[in-house]
Amino acid sequence: MERFDINILGCGSATPTLQHHPSSQVINVREKLFMIDCGEGTQLQFRKSRLRFGRLNRIFISHLHGDHCFGIIGLISTLALLGRTGDMYIHAHADLENILKPLINYFCKDNPFNVIFAPFDPTLNEVIYEDRSIKVSTIPLIHRVPCAGFLFQEQETNAHLIADMIQFHNIPIKELANIKKGADFVKEDGTVIPNKMLTRPADQARSYAYCSDTAYNEKIVPIIENVDVLYHEATFGEDNIHRTIKTGHSTAKQAAQIAKLANVKKLILGHFSARYTDNTSLLEEAKSIFPNTILANEGLCEKL
Amino acid sequence: MERFDINILGCGSATPTLQHHPSSQVINVREKLFMIDCGEGTQLQFRKSRLRFGRLNRIFISHLHGDHCFGIIGLISTLALLGRTGDMYIHAHADLENILKPLINYFCKDNPFNVIFAPFDPTLNEVIYEDRSIKVSTIPLIHRVPCAGFLFQEQETNAHLIADMIQFHNIPIKELANIKKGADFVKEDGTVIPNKMLTRPADQARSYAYCSDTAYNEKIVPIIENVDVLYHEATFGEDNIHRTIKTGHSTAKQAAQIAKLANVKKLILGHFSARYTDNTSLLEEAKSIFPNTILANEGLCEKL
Repeated sequence: MERFDINILGCGSATPTLQHHPSSQVINVREKLFMIDCGEGTQLQFRKSRLRFGRLNRIFISHLHGDHCFGIIGLISTLALLGRTGDMYIHAHADLENILKPLINYFCKDNPFNVIFAPFDPTLNEVIYEDRSIKVSTIPLIHRVPCAGFLFQEQETNAHLIADMIQFHNIPIKELANIKKGADFVKEDGTVIPNKMLTRPADQARSYAYCSDTAYNEKIVPIIENVDVLYHEATFGEDNIHRTIKTGHSTAKQAAQIAKLANVKKLILGHFSARYTDNTSLLEEAKSIFPNTILANEGLCEKL
Repeated sequence: MERFDINILGCGSATPTLQHHPSSQVINVREKLFMIDCGEGTQLQFRKSRLRFGRLNRIFISHLHGDHCFGIIGLISTLALLGRTGDMYIHAHADLENILKPLINYFCKDNPFNVIFAPFDPTLNEVIYEDRSIKVSTIPLIHRVPCAGFLFQEQETNAHLIADMIQFHNIPIKELANIKKGADFVKEDGTVIPNKMLTRPADQARSYAYCSDTAYNEKIVPIIENVDVLYHEATFGEDNIHRTIKTGHSTAKQAAQIAKLANVKKLILGHFSARYTDNTSLLEEAKSIFPNTILANEGLCEKL
């Protein structure tokens, strides 16, 4: 199966700690890298992860709090030092352009590439990026500032050819594209070789949802239903549930409730408050509702 | 002797590596902390160093390249989260205010303290800050953009009273301040107790010079003459001397030449290019000219 990995670069919250870095992750879809959020120090975490800067394709920013975007300017500068020439698209709330443009103009005026801002409306659930491999949509979240999560859906792929059968029936190369798409093969004598003899079914399209930062919000359930992996913030435990409304965050248990309602396959908890030096209590809370839960951690690479 | 420490938080150059963080250091003068430069990730290095955020007094920025200032906004945000209320002064080139103000206005609008920009002219050698303990002056450097180093000079202190002698001569408290400043004591019967009987000499005022980033520049020699410790950039070794002019940097040997000409007591090399995975060759080059040289390293605490 082709690569679809979630690499966690940072899963802490606003105050950086010695345990966790601020939010950032890199989705590797068939060796094309998509970054979600970019807190301070992300470029160093990227380097540590041994991901390749040259493969970084686009950046998606959930919302404009510092722990989700203060690393952008440093990353952009470093990409320039490393000789990047391809334009870099940043999908974010429209305000980001006003904030970052003066910095880019001052510090990166000799950059060999452009930074192109692609604003989205975080109140909508709509496709904001699409290519042959992947489709990215926004997930409206409830936070103190406008905020959207991201749904990464793999595009439907073609069936796999069964090489032995293709050879056996001596099928010409020009027919293969059609067969991959489901066509039968008709021999010169009129014999029909049905498609299912020539192909194995396509891999099932995979999907990943990133929901951070957000208060408990059942409205996202239909959007993220049945995803393979859900990353949901779990800033607090039940001991701090009174903080969730004012701060626009969730508890681990609430994250698990969303995972259960949405019938996702696996839940990753993240965005841990600095008050927890050990996150296992959060894990236990979530597991009591949704057993297939793991904790995010810097360096985690979750393969879908 | 009262504390005068140099804490190295980062001594790498523009491209962050897994060896070195971008430039930042904290000068601890009698438990008052002064930061010099603030590259991305400085707040995390600060936390690692176990220095106390609450004691951070002022920030001095040598020049406006990203590896010397991209960490300011994150640090300011964190200081606010930690509840700082005292204003924060940032001494830097005048452009910094234009660059940072929009960020501060957007991300830190509820900050419980003000950030006050104190611009300086990097072409001049002048005092830009002074208190009872320390005097900070600019050192004009040669770089690709306007750039100044900083000279930290401890203020002259008073002589130390010899407690036994003060007691023996039964000297009233109100006389002590004058005696510390050098006065003799005259007893009621007219006997003069000379000051040198009552005091030990004051500690010698110490001094530290930070010179980064800079090309080789003998003009700084009279300014930094006889300092206890000189931190001088050594981005390159002699193998890359051809890069120094265009980039406005120095070799380790050039740093040592400046140290020798200025008759400093000790030289710390820093701002190492990412091309050197091991800096011992730079150390050897410098030592051949100026033996009392050490390499900066993250976590180094040099006590003056």
